Amino acid sequence: MRGVVMYAPGDMRVEDVEEPQLLKPTDAIIRLCATCICGSDLWPYRGADDVTEPFHMGHEYVGIVDEVGDAVTTVKPGQFVVGSFFASDNTCEICQAGYQTSCVNREVLGTTGRAQAQRMRVPLADGTLVATPDVPSEDLVPSFLAASDVLGTGWFGAVAAAAGPGKTVAVVGDGAVGLMAVLAAKQLGAERIIAMSRHEPRQRLAVEFGATDIVTERGEEGVAKVKELTNGLGAHSVVEAVGTPQSMAQAMGTARPGGHIGYVGVLHDVEIKGDDLFMSHVHLHGGPAPVRRFLPELIDLIWNRKIDPGKVFDLELPIDQAAEGYRAMDERQAIKVLLRP
Amino acid sequence: MRGVVMYAPGDMRVEDVEEPQLLKPTDAIIRLCATCICGSDLWPYRGADDVTEPFHMGHEYVGIVDEVGDAVTTVKPGQFVVGSFFASDNTCEICQAGYQTSCVNREVLGTTGRAQAQRMRVPLADGTLVATPDVPSEDLVPSFLAASDVLGTGWFGAVAAAAGPGKTVAVVGDGAVGLMAVLAAKQLGAERIIAMSRHEPRQRLAVEFGATDIVTERGEEGVAKVKELTNGLGAHSVVEAVGTPQSMAQAMGTARPGGHIGYVGVLHDVEIKGDDLFMSHVHLHGGPAPVRRFLPELIDLIWNRKIDPGKVFDLELPIDQAAEGYRAMDERQAIKVLLRP
Repeated sequence: MRGVVMYAPGDMRVEDVEEPQLLKPTDAIIRLCATCICGSDLWPYRGADDVTEPFHMGHEYVGIVDEVGDAVTTVKPGQFVVGSFFASDNTCEICQAGYQTSCVNREVLGTTGRAQAQRMRVPLADGTLVATPDVPSEDLVPSFLAASDVLGTGWFGAVAAAAGPGKTVAVVGDGAVGLMAVLAAKQLGAERIIAMSRHEPRQRLAVEFGATDIVTERGEEGVAKVKELTNGLGAHSVVEAVGTPQSMAQAMGTARPGGHIGYVGVLHDVEIKGDDLFMSHVHLHGGPAPVRRFLPELIDLIWNRKIDPGKVFDLELPIDQAAEGYRAMDERQAIKVLLRP
Repeated sequence: MRGVVMYAPGDMRVEDVEEPQLLKPTDAIIRLCATCICGSDLWPYRGADDVTEPFHMGHEYVGIVDEVGDAVTTVKPGQFVVGSFFASDNTCEICQAGYQTSCVNREVLGTTGRAQAQRMRVPLADGTLVATPDVPSEDLVPSFLAASDVLGTGWFGAVAAAAGPGKTVAVVGDGAVGLMAVLAAKQLGAERIIAMSRHEPRQRLAVEFGATDIVTERGEEGVAKVKELTNGLGAHSVVEAVGTPQSMAQAMGTARPGGHIGYVGVLHDVEIKGDDLFMSHVHLHGGPAPVRRFLPELIDLIWNRKIDPGKVFDLELPIDQAAEGYRAMDERQAIKVLLRP
């Protein structure tokens, strides 16, 4: 079968890779209907993470169950399923508290999760996969694929930022996750949603997803602009969806005392100074989004066409052209690229 | 009148200082019944904070109102009042959200708050001071004094750490604030309270305040011990009541994924690494405790003798012997020193 392999930063190849096998009785094999390229895949692509040997990329997936191991009871062949980037048992105390990405038995799929392929192995299938009510119509597939990572991640960011009725929510980052956080904040009932973006197509999408204000300034100017919009106080809720020192500083500056920052951009080279944190009075929460916590609700919203997160995919390519997809995302010509296996 | 002045690290003098005056119509002057030495006063005492000129110490106080400015309406001469270390209007949006220490009109009393004296000026008296139902009996005075800082701070730490029914709470730091956090966790209904302390008198007090377990190990060994006590997962709630890199690392290590850390030790030289934070999945919240938020509830609990936080004072001295009090706290011979003006 065909799979996308990173050989070195910038060097993406689509080649024949090994067919996945059931390795444990708790595994499932799925045939992918769609997969995609993640913002986090760009970290190694750009050389920010090491690439010591070629690896088979991908961790966002929806598909039809092909085979299941003997111990799998909640999904069966023929079902359309949505999973996410960490496999979890969904039964341990940490999972039950809603932190499936810190499951005591978790298996990290991550950047090297082999989802950019025609078929993949999903460990801990019972805990990880959620089936849709029936095989969905084709036009819903991109939205379910979004649920598998970017929507679930943006949603966690908005929940971690305590977005809700009466709240002003600022979103730092206009990548797919940031845009999904806008959608999530809207669904969670936020009163005002400030999208921080300087890219017109992304601004338009942010407004479509529910943004009430656009701030194009960055850094200290961006902070000043948000304060101007919030009576000098700052936003109640801030979603940090980038992961750089600059974006984290912008998030810290943007939140009001007592406010909440939900950080879902994978933090790179960020150091938070204790005295800044102490005096800021913010709540900080985030990390690898426990997408599994939100999947039943997100699947329901998508199945009933209450939300349309699939709009975030603005480029669709056959998997053989994956390298072109990486290039387009790297150069910010595409927000999010869907690959057809 | 007599007041306690720091001339340099370790150099405390009690001398005649200027009588306080009403400077603004929102001020009150109170005659102190008791004041005390704070753990945070030890930072400059030990040379960790600069002492560029002599300053009049103190920010913990209870007393009888002597005079009020023309604009003061909620307290009047003759009333016994409890305040705290930041003056706040208690009406702005930030105050109303419970973050009076970030009040838009706040005035920081802090280390140089002039409360170690016979009388003091309290700014924004209406927002800052809370009167007790009547002048309390003498034996309740230490508990009300505790409410003015260490109890309010420990309480905020426990609230920020989401202590409550069913929770295991670990407290890092066995100073007065840590011990008060134990008391707070107990009052908030925590199921299990792990006090981390290697000092026997403090361990005894911790148990008296509600600790169910004592961990004497520190650093990685302390973390391992708490994990051992919590099925390998870590505590749901951790109160960080010290403020050093070591204690913060211990708190981060001790909290389970999805758990909450409430930090109330003034953070010194602490840097939190983004990737550690990201993968820890903890909630972080803290800062200068908005004691004012909790004062009505704490006053009620003390007035009705439901809690006895005054036990945290294990040394009482006339204000003229303040230097001896500083020495005793610095050398950890006393947990907390009450000064009689």
